[in-house]
Amino acid sequence: MARQEDLFKKLIAHCKEYGFVFPSSEIYDGLSAVYDYGQYGVELKNNLKRYWWDGMTLLHDNIVGIDAAIFMHPTVWKASGHVDAFNDPLIDNRDSKKRYRADVLIEDHLAKIDEKISREVEKAAKKFGDSFDEAMFRSTNPRVAKHQAERDAIHERFANAMNANDLAELRQIIIDCEIVCPLSGTRNWTDVRQFNLMFATEMGSTADGAMKVYLRPETAQGIFVNFLNVQKTGRMKIPFGIAQIGKAFRNEIVARQFIFRMREFEQMEMQFFVRPGEELAWFARWKEARMRWHRNLGLGDEKYRFHDHEKLAHYANAATDIEYEMPFGFKEVEGIHSRTNFDLSQHEKFSGKKIQYFDAELGTSYTPYVIETSIGVDRLFLSILAGAYTEETLDGGESRVVLKLPPALAPIKLAVLPLVRKDGLAEKAEEILHMLRFDFRCQYDEKDSIGKRYRRQDAIGTPYCITVDYDTMRDNTVTIRFRDTMEQERVSIDRLHEIISDRVSLRSLLEGLK
Amino acid sequence: MARQEDLFKKLIAHCKEYGFVFPSSEIYDGLSAVYDYGQYGVELKNNLKRYWWDGMTLLHDNIVGIDAAIFMHPTVWKASGHVDAFNDPLIDNRDSKKRYRADVLIEDHLAKIDEKISREVEKAAKKFGDSFDEAMFRSTNPRVAKHQAERDAIHERFANAMNANDLAELRQIIIDCEIVCPLSGTRNWTDVRQFNLMFATEMGSTADGAMKVYLRPETAQGIFVNFLNVQKTGRMKIPFGIAQIGKAFRNEIVARQFIFRMREFEQMEMQFFVRPGEELAWFARWKEARMRWHRNLGLGDEKYRFHDHEKLAHYANAATDIEYEMPFGFKEVEGIHSRTNFDLSQHEKFSGKKIQYFDAELGTSYTPYVIETSIGVDRLFLSILAGAYTEETLDGGESRVVLKLPPALAPIKLAVLPLVRKDGLAEKAEEILHMLRFDFRCQYDEKDSIGKRYRRQDAIGTPYCITVDYDTMRDNTVTIRFRDTMEQERVSIDRLHEIISDRVSLRSLLEGLK
Repeated sequence: MARQEDLFKKLIAHCKEYGFVFPSSEIYDGLSAVYDYGQYGVELKNNLKRYWWDGMTLLHDNIVGIDAAIFMHPTVWKASGHVDAFNDPLIDNRDSKKRYRADVLIEDHLAKIDEKISREVEKAAKKFGDSFDEAMFRSTNPRVAKHQAERDAIHERFANAMNANDLAELRQIIIDCEIVCPLSGTRNWTDVRQFNLMFATEMGSTADGAMKVYLRPETAQGIFVNFLNVQKTGRMKIPFGIAQIGKAFRNEIVARQFIFRMREFEQMEMQFFVRPGEELAWFARWKEARMRWHRNLGLGDEKYRFHDHEKLAHYANAATDIEYEMPFGFKEVEGIHSRTNFDLSQHEKFSGKKIQYFDAELGTSYTPYVIETSIGVDRLFLSILAGAYTEETLDGGESRVVLKLPPALAPIKLAVLPLVRKDGLAEKAEEILHMLRFDFRCQYDEKDSIGKRYRRQDAIGTPYCITVDYDTMRDNTVTIRFRDTMEQERVSIDRLHEIISDRVSLRSLLEGLK
Repeated sequence: MARQEDLFKKLIAHCKEYGFVFPSSEIYDGLSAVYDYGQYGVELKNNLKRYWWDGMTLLHDNIVGIDAAIFMHPTVWKASGHVDAFNDPLIDNRDSKKRYRADVLIEDHLAKIDEKISREVEKAAKKFGDSFDEAMFRSTNPRVAKHQAERDAIHERFANAMNANDLAELRQIIIDCEIVCPLSGTRNWTDVRQFNLMFATEMGSTADGAMKVYLRPETAQGIFVNFLNVQKTGRMKIPFGIAQIGKAFRNEIVARQFIFRMREFEQMEMQFFVRPGEELAWFARWKEARMRWHRNLGLGDEKYRFHDHEKLAHYANAATDIEYEMPFGFKEVEGIHSRTNFDLSQHEKFSGKKIQYFDAELGTSYTPYVIETSIGVDRLFLSILAGAYTEETLDGGESRVVLKLPPALAPIKLAVLPLVRKDGLAEKAEEILHMLRFDFRCQYDEKDSIGKRYRRQDAIGTPYCITVDYDTMRDNTVTIRFRDTMEQERVSIDRLHEIISDRVSLRSLLEGLK
């Protein structure tokens, strides 16, 4: 576990040192839970977005994209339920004046009990060695049983309070568990209050006042309110989907784990509209299709798993997460939800416009059901970096850090390196660069030893390094060096385009989805 | 003029009818000055963005991209001057309770005087026919001279008041010109007050209160605050540039002309960092390079012109606009500004961090000077649609609307149309579609007559239509129909990829920039 935390810290440092992710407004000491993408980060992110966009809209005749604005009519968020129910329960400690999420305080308390149990188990495991039967120990040891009973009781009260939205009971659990403020150490708590997570602002300026609008907390509603426009102008027939990539905003009180949970983040969402009654079959198909899309990146099939939801949101009749094994455990990178006809019905109710689809085959109109696939781009980006980040010890005892990114996602596809600057080698390298750069994102580097230059390219995940040396001037060949194996091959310059193209193109990645 | 206004209305209707641009939250009767991009609009916009991004970052070894967040530390906007000076002067009419921009009221009044002069000139031109000397008439006709003198006097007072930020004088001009509220018809005006155009919101929630942050009114500052991060981690050497595409927000009081001036809009900005003293030479180079980029789209060189600024912002020492001839006149689509070292110096002052560059060749450190190229994506999008929108009367007397978009920007590259659905033609068409769709955005259409299907593709600007007929089943050839000429050619299916690829690829467009 410590090793994993250490790895995560190194990954964050690497992101900054190599121009992937910078803290936002860093010269002003940063803005909490907001990050900027640097020169390599933005290319990796753009490649990811294109893989998703083309995977959705190029490869499916019945999926089209849109780009709806971040600002929407405020009634949209009444209809969606966000104005009334998109809340976190907050509590203040009167001595430290510090504010906390009540549910997080309780979750942390539960986690501490879990730790106590784990410590007992570990101790016993050490003591009994190979003969240790953990299940037996857990069910018979009196100390563990006591902790477990305590945990179960708190957990049940907690789940009930959250379900019932019972703020007084949340506070009572905190009191009963004797949870103290980590800062002041006291139990001098205020009441628990609801805090809406949407950012609000004022639009326009009339003598009567401005209009309160929200920054969208999810991109999905931009698709729902445009359902009729797209269906009609695009002559779409059910089943069909609408895809969208865009920013969303949530005023998280506890934002943490680097770019995993940010206040400003990007989503890639696709809403797939189907006949009522067919939604669960489509849910199953999209579950499989989305898992295939992730595993097609080649980071290792075992890194992904489904986490089906047992408890469903009131509007859903099936839901699952695709989780990736991050340095801090398996975490959601995509959600797939069968959202029923909840959203379209709500918008019909609140807008007074009929939002239905006439199904010519069935000869009837209905409110379509919806399967949603929803990715947080930033956490997907983090999962890919975590999967790619590799520390290796080389034969000579030297070490290297290499990002083993899927070549089609790598920010720079190849680096062109003249062995030395003189004798026309630099000019020859520039010539190769100019030949290839319309098709591949290239980088030229002439500084430091070849070894150092290879390390720099390893660190940003460049799949190929082309070295121009004195032989090049004689026979028009170069050395191509492969990032992962570090093997080198002598090839003719004329063959470079073909060799590289086969392996780094987005098309090659998309073909894996066929 | 009336014809042009009419054209603009038709263009807006076309955008909605064919899925390019929808009013935001339309089912809720829209949100003022906010629009959504539909299924074809988003593809056209994405293609435009890629043309810019690749033109900047692929074709220049010394330009890299970033993607900074919309939220920035609030002090950024103190440093940039936006908190103190990014204002519009507003005035209310007490009777109608309606709010106006004081400067717009005066500008409209000046425009009315201009109209009066124009009418006098037109009347005289009609009367005198070929012998009419307009310059002579303007300088000698007493009525025109009186209007002109009045106009000049108001204009001078107006310019001085705006420069001096003299709100009382702005009000006095409105009073003196006897400007009335268009709604109430009265001159019962309040004082003029400054109104900041930035959208504000509250971030976080602490017991002490939240932090006031702004939605960025321009993307440029995201580049300036990351100057050191990118320069150091990217090992960039001056001269070099940082490019960025992203959303910006301005609470415009008078937002108008469709997507030309929106409250939420997208910018493509590149800041180019140079040695002090070399900025004007670089300004001249970027002016030419940017004009070449626009004209390379092929909409007509005469549609573009420079508009050099005579009056410069306090931080600039040269500025020009690239204007495009919109249906409502020549309008700015890109600005090129020599911003001196103003922004970096301000951030150095407000952040307390040293923001300098050590120039190894000169052996000295300095604050770099900046040339900015700044495009409003949405107005560029509008200019392209306006340039492409064509109404044609065909030989048979029939008419068609065709979007003559640059093929590399067209949302759909080709449509595959089976003549009839039966006898295996539909299946053959699907086969061709599946062969080509990894490389080109394709559409399949089997509904209605071939003529109607051609019209639909014309209306969204599809450069090629492929028709599958009975001959196809015998000899593996299809008809390829060219959008602009409507000519048709019989070609082998095997040649399709090559024919289309040559003309619709982004690469072909980029090669025009060499």
